[in-house]
Amino acid sequence: METKKTRSTAPERQVKKSAPVYFDELSMAEVRKNADKKRVVLLPLGSVEEHGDHLPLNTDSIQPEFVAEEVSRRTGCLIAPPLRYGLCEAARNFPGTISIEFDTLRFIVRDILTEFIRQGFNRLLVMSGHAGSMHMAALRLAAREVIQQHRDDPKESIPRIMVLSDYDFAYLLKGKGFDDRDGHAGTIETSRVMAIRPDLIKKQGKRSYSQFPKFEIVPDPENYFPGGVNGDPTAATAEKGRMLNDFIIAEICKLVLDLKR
Amino acid sequence: METKKTRSTAPERQVKKSAPVYFDELSMAEVRKNADKKRVVLLPLGSVEEHGDHLPLNTDSIQPEFVAEEVSRRTGCLIAPPLRYGLCEAARNFPGTISIEFDTLRFIVRDILTEFIRQGFNRLLVMSGHAGSMHMAALRLAAREVIQQHRDDPKESIPRIMVLSDYDFAYLLKGKGFDDRDGHAGTIETSRVMAIRPDLIKKQGKRSYSQFPKFEIVPDPENYFPGGVNGDPTAATAEKGRMLNDFIIAEICKLVLDLKR
Amino acid sequence: METKKTRSTAPERQVKKSAPVYFDELSMAEVRKNADKKRVVLLPLGSVEEHGDHLPLNTDSIQPEFVAEEVSRRTGCLIAPPLRYGLCEAARNFPGTISIEFDTLRFIVRDILTEFIRQGFNRLLVMSGHAGSMHMAALRLAAREVIQQHRDDPKESIPRIMVLSDYDFAYLLKGKGFDDRDGHAGTIETSRVMAIRPDLIKKQGKRSYSQFPKFEIVPDPENYFPGGVNGDPTAATAEKGRMLNDFIIAEICKLVLDLKR
Amino acid sequence: METKKTRSTAPERQVKKSAPVYFDELSMAEVRKNADKKRVVLLPLGSVEEHGDHLPLNTDSIQPEFVAEEVSRRTGCLIAPPLRYGLCEAARNFPGTISIEFDTLRFIVRDILTEFIRQGFNRLLVMSGHAGSMHMAALRLAAREVIQQHRDDPKESIPRIMVLSDYDFAYLLKGKGFDDRDGHAGTIETSRVMAIRPDLIKKQGKRSYSQFPKFEIVPDPENYFPGGVNGDPTAATAEKGRMLNDFIIAEICKLVLDLKR
Amino acid sequence: METKKTRSTAPERQVKKSAPVYFDELSMAEVRKNADKKRVVLLPLGSVEEHGDHLPLNTDSIQPEFVAEEVSRRTGCLIAPPLRYGLCEAARNFPGTISIEFDTLRFIVRDILTEFIRQGFNRLLVMSGHAGSMHMAALRLAAREVIQQHRDDPKESIPRIMVLSDYDFAYLLKGKGFDDRDGHAGTIETSRVMAIRPDLIKKQGKRSYSQFPKFEIVPDPENYFPGGVNGDPTAATAEKGRMLNDFIIAEICKLVLDLKR
Amino acid sequence: METKKTRSTAPERQVKKSAPVYFDELSMAEVRKNADKKRVVLLPLGSVEEHGDHLPLNTDSIQPEFVAEEVSRRTGCLIAPPLRYGLCEAARNFPGTISIEFDTLRFIVRDILTEFIRQGFNRLLVMSGHAGSMHMAALRLAAREVIQQHRDDPKESIPRIMVLSDYDFAYLLKGKGFDDRDGHAGTIETSRVMAIRPDLIKKQGKRSYSQFPKFEIVPDPENYFPGGVNGDPTAATAEKGRMLNDFIIAEICKLVLDLKR
Repeated sequence: METKKTRSTAPERQVKKSAPVYFDELSMAEVRKNADKKRVVLLPLGSVEEHGDHLPLNTDSIQPEFVAEEVSRRTGCLIAPPLRYGLCEAARNFPGTISIEFDTLRFIVRDILTEFIRQGFNRLLVMSGHAGSMHMAALRLAAREVIQQHRDDPKESIPRIMVLSDYDFAYLLKGKGFDDRDGHAGTIETSRVMAIRPDLIKKQGKRSYSQFPKFEIVPDPENYFPGGVNGDPTAATAEKGRMLNDFIIAEICKLVLDLKR
Repeated sequence: METKKTRSTAPERQVKKSAPVYFDELSMAEVRKNADKKRVVLLPLGSVEEHGDHLPLNTDSIQPEFVAEEVSRRTGCLIAPPLRYGLCEAARNFPGTISIEFDTLRFIVRDILTEFIRQGFNRLLVMSGHAGSMHMAALRLAAREVIQQHRDDPKESIPRIMVLSDYDFAYLLKGKGFDDRDGHAGTIETSRVMAIRPDLIKKQGKRSYSQFPKFEIVPDPENYFPGGVNGDPTAATAEKGRMLNDFIIAEICKLVLDLKR
Repeated sequence: METKKTRSTAPERQVKKSAPVYFDELSMAEVRKNADKKRVVLLPLGSVEEHGDHLPLNTDSIQPEFVAEEVSRRTGCLIAPPLRYGLCEAARNFPGTISIEFDTLRFIVRDILTEFIRQGFNRLLVMSGHAGSMHMAALRLAAREVIQQHRDDPKESIPRIMVLSDYDFAYLLKGKGFDDRDGHAGTIETSRVMAIRPDLIKKQGKRSYSQFPKFEIVPDPENYFPGGVNGDPTAATAEKGRMLNDFIIAEICKLVLDLKR
Repeated sequence: METKKTRSTAPERQVKKSAPVYFDELSMAEVRKNADKKRVVLLPLGSVEEHGDHLPLNTDSIQPEFVAEEVSRRTGCLIAPPLRYGLCEAARNFPGTISIEFDTLRFIVRDILTEFIRQGFNRLLVMSGHAGSMHMAALRLAAREVIQQHRDDPKESIPRIMVLSDYDFAYLLKGKGFDDRDGHAGTIETSRVMAIRPDLIKKQGKRSYSQFPKFEIVPDPENYFPGGVNGDPTAATAEKGRMLNDFIIAEICKLVLDLKR
Repeated sequence: METKKTRSTAPERQVKKSAPVYFDELSMAEVRKNADKKRVVLLPLGSVEEHGDHLPLNTDSIQPEFVAEEVSRRTGCLIAPPLRYGLCEAARNFPGTISIEFDTLRFIVRDILTEFIRQGFNRLLVMSGHAGSMHMAALRLAAREVIQQHRDDPKESIPRIMVLSDYDFAYLLKGKGFDDRDGHAGTIETSRVMAIRPDLIKKQGKRSYSQFPKFEIVPDPENYFPGGVNGDPTAATAEKGRMLNDFIIAEICKLVLDLKR
Repeated sequence: METKKTRSTAPERQVKKSAPVYFDELSMAEVRKNADKKRVVLLPLGSVEEHGDHLPLNTDSIQPEFVAEEVSRRTGCLIAPPLRYGLCEAARNFPGTISIEFDTLRFIVRDILTEFIRQGFNRLLVMSGHAGSMHMAALRLAAREVIQQHRDDPKESIPRIMVLSDYDFAYLLKGKGFDDRDGHAGTIETSRVMAIRPDLIKKQGKRSYSQFPKFEIVPDPENYFPGGVNGDPTAATAEKGRMLNDFIIAEICKLVLDLKR
């Protein structure tokens, strides 16, 4: 296997004003200078999860890390080191999926948020490329537990934390040029990866739709979408991906500005 | 602040035979092909920790990730997505340090190892750039808990797990051209970062030596090395760094070969 | 088996074929007779949560317990003792809300499911009157943990568990005579309580709509809907409530029949 | 506040002065009015546990809920929603017993107490119909953990919590018309259920006495009382039950009055 | 095996047949020889707890360790290393009491039992000198959790575990020469220490009786027996102590013989 | 205070100035007198672990308890009741080893330290005769967790805690008359037991050296030193043991004096 890898040099990045700021590339002295309570820290979260035979396991990491980079260029927010392990439910039993426990995810996100706050950063945006419901629940529970710790603080020093998936925005475009049923490794996701890391597109994906039981918790969710795809990757293009990414980036930038107030 | 960043294009990488293999850049289909029980998975661990005013917070992540990349080129081992958060004791209270809890580190490493084994990868090497004793204890405890789960398996299917820090090797060179007292952010560490990511060297570091109490657990370890440095960064050179890295890479390659048997 | 007592005596209960079967009203001998692996056990869950000044705190308990009773009459499923404590987020800080911790809810539901399975009941339907996202996540996590325990069982003895809220059905009627924005203590919920327990309607409720921030985890959600209502209780009628309840009951009956197969 | 519904309609309820007050039948506004720190909240706890072939599984729930209702009528105390799941040891392996874990019981009781205190109710009486020693230990541990949280509060705002079983009183009558050896599903318990819910008496019970080993923790306690009965149900009468219930109710009323001071 | 050392040299030890066998004074080779599944291991548990001004903090450790020694002499059972820390409730806030958490006690006893079983010792007797109800509950819960692990073992290899306090026997003598109200640091306990370790009797104790509230969980139990004594130490004599100890030793010997079957 | 009893009567104890002070031999009144914040409490920790066929399982308990006694004689420090259970890794699977879990050890040490601090003793020295790395990590983690609780206390009331093994000193003499490779049950350890408890020396030990893999976490460490010995017990003498013990005692005395400041 060959990866041509140039991690963050996707074609569409051109007219930027400034470089993204990776928190952990700063020195202690530089942190001291940056330690403005209202400076937003953006934490990108991903997963190691099958995305069909056409997309890589890091599909859910690539996207939010790319978005984070662009948002940082435009808003100057700090990018926390990404966490590339998440909790996978439906795709858990496919080859390649590495899924951490609910409590593990909850605790590490809780710790990271707690520590940034301890270090004086009070505006935190958790953005996950993986959007599974249990995964998101762990993130929200973590954030909630951190906020509860500060409930009785003076109002102006209570931290502000947002938790979201970039797919909260991506899926707003369903019906607007994208199929309502599009999901995991489908048109939207494939397009976005094509725009960000074309070198990681393995082959043409196959169209298929998952048929999960509505309320039942099943031990074998993989049997309800045997190809690991829910949508139509054949409709994906890099152009669509760029449009999607631009839309998402713009929306996240608004949230960062809201947090900075 | 400006980072010139080219994450993995340090000068010394030249006569490689093949590209490093990032596990999460594979597709599900490619994992299926790679799922050889004896294919080694290398998990690089770092930290977000002050390293004086001259080195970045990600000093402990840069080093093992670079080593992992080179070891993968030479041995074909798979690189698991790095975990860039660790447990910091002595440096915890300096600006910029983001330290996760003992149990959080233990659980996430346990989960990652468990999942690779579930996916059929039975040769695992955990390599941490951070070498604090509590941090290493959490890693070893995690590995031990995983191994205990398999104690009663048939002998040939018991996983093999190694846990180490690249500093287990780096410090073997103390006395051989490096000061016996060299440690955190000192000559060795500064040299290695100079060789890997010269763009992240912020300035000339200051020489100082920590004076930790030998047995006492203190609430304010930062007061025992006020500059956050233990060693002499002024003696560091990129050349020394390359030599150190080569030595470490060669040693880790031997371990990978041992595991593959 | 016959139970003479009819716990709730809401007006609309008339042309029933049989009495509801409360699991815990059975004797040990009767359980032995009923211990058919495919006999469905329905677990109603509620909460103690403010629902404006017009509805009682047990609003979320009344509804699923009523539904359970009717479903039992029609399908013969067993009703497990209800759990009337849940996890409340948005309404937590209003007078009267008694909210249990995420893990407490998860553990008690996990235990109850585990025990029914141990006792030979392998078809389980968890139906919650409270539909908060964290609350539902705890229920699903519990069910998932139970199912994971049985993953390697012979296929025919793997339990089947469904987790849902009666509001998964109630809200299907939004847009069909009910406002799209209707929610907590609004038209639908008020109507349903009017149909089930008119004696507990305290007064005319006040119309208002919550304005929760979309992604932010806030310490004071109560400030975003000061009256504790999200919808228009003034549009509620017992007639609408009966229609809603009938629709929900019919849908849950279908699920019970599906589980019995 | 008025509640028209009367949940249980046992024959002996006649000359009451007022209706029982179910906490969760109140609205938020009504709670606000009732939020007197010294207003006692009574939490009835039961279990789902075999009680021979003559009594229902909810025997331990019926009794304290009936007592709670009567005590509320006489003292005006608030009745918290009952918890109908408990921890069963000796009867665990009989058909029908649904037993929750020690920690689950401890955590849910801890949460409920904590929440009532948060809501301003500082006088709490936990009354369990199940009196197993491990079950009672979980309740006491929960109460103790809650009290420890308030140890350093100003004396007048430290909550007061009582934990007891109605059988702490019922068994005072052993030797006074009841056999010293009477216990689980015996004369006393059968009589009380005959007085409260005669419709749930299934048949004539059989007399037998358990022979538990004194100190040994056995995996099969059911083998030491094969019928699941410890006592003589044939001596039970509704008249005895009424007398027992009256005695217990009077004693609990005294405790409520003590707590109100 | 012979051990020459005699740890405690209380006067009443005379006509012994053999030396007590301390498990941890054996070598690995000697354990191998002793590893008979039915060889009883006796685990003495104590506490560090005030016992008035006349008795030492280790009162609850001295007694079971002395009993264990005598029982070992007579039955050949093995004595596990004592655990001298327990959970104290009523005496917690007096000077000198060192009380460990419920879960800590539960986990260490669970671990010790688990390990002896792993080492092939299947007959275990836990004997605590401290008899507080929460303390005893932790021990029983631990034993129960261990037994549950073996529930599905072949019948003959299920371990047998007894849990008791030597006071379960001592208090049988209440009414037979000892006051019914005698308790903590009273006549019985003082007499026993006088017989075992007269050198640790500090002074004449003071008679007083505790007045604990019956059901209330109070934050300040020490206020209900200000001298930390519940009974009449002035009635204590070494002669009574010897009689008590002999009685207890004889009873425990019977249990050991029962376990050996 | 006077204690007449001398628990261990090893030959070399002669020219002492005063008796050792066992904390738990004090009465409540005596504790009150001794409750000086700076009075050092020394907690001896051991293990139940094979030490070859020549040494007893309590080898790691005997040594620190003897040292504690001597240090108490010389410095007046208080000796806390020893904990004779520890966490064993390499020797876990040999006959006789009783190893507690990491968290159990951590929690009990945390509880003991917490409680001494609560009782007003703010100078604590944890001294373990067992020196396994996981065991020591549990102790340090416990101490760290306790110290973190006091981080924000006024500086003068922050407790001081030291954690060490007496082998931190014993091994300083390697190369000075003792083999560099000496370890578990080797010359040093055997000599020390010969000096302290010659009656427990079972036979002449056998010389052997362990060959543990350097980084691998193995399920069967016992296979890497089949005799359970790492060193040369044949070179051991009581004289060497006395010298070693004297050296260690003197060093620990210095630490106690440091803590008393």
